[in-house]
Amino acid sequence: MTTATTFTVPDISCAHCKASIEEAVGAVPGVEAVDVNIEERTVDVRYDPVSVEEGVIVGAIEGQGYEVA
Amino acid sequence: MTTATTFTVPDISCAHCKASIEEAVGAVPGVEAVDVNIEERTVDVRYDPVSVEEGVIVGAIEGQGYEVA
Repeated sequence: MTTATTFTVPDISCAHCKASIEEAVGAVPGVEAVDVNIEERTVDVRYDPVSVEEGVIVGAIEGQGYEVA
Repeated sequence: MTTATTFTVPDISCAHCKASIEEAVGAVPGVEAVDVNIEERTVDVRYDPVSVEEGVIVGAIEGQGYEVA
């Protein structure tokens, strides 16, 4: 099973933000794909909802210093 | 209100692990204090349970590449 969720992260501004968020979210077990869109300030995540809950993904983003709107 | 939770993270092994986990968990809004004990492989976290749920803290740790047991 796969769920796709788009998180809005207003403080995304540059390629460094993109790299650090993609690395952190990608390290969470159960995450299948992650893509940060700098212009839209969004994080698209595909994940297995059986093995990871949405709050864990939020934590991976917030651990990099970005609040999820 | 403050909750104190100890997370077990078996792959903690050195001062670099400690620093990266403390930085990530400390960046989560609602976390008041975090201390990694390298020998016990644990992460002690004090946080406001109204503003942050436990799963978000798990995500901050997992985003650094460590699974929570």
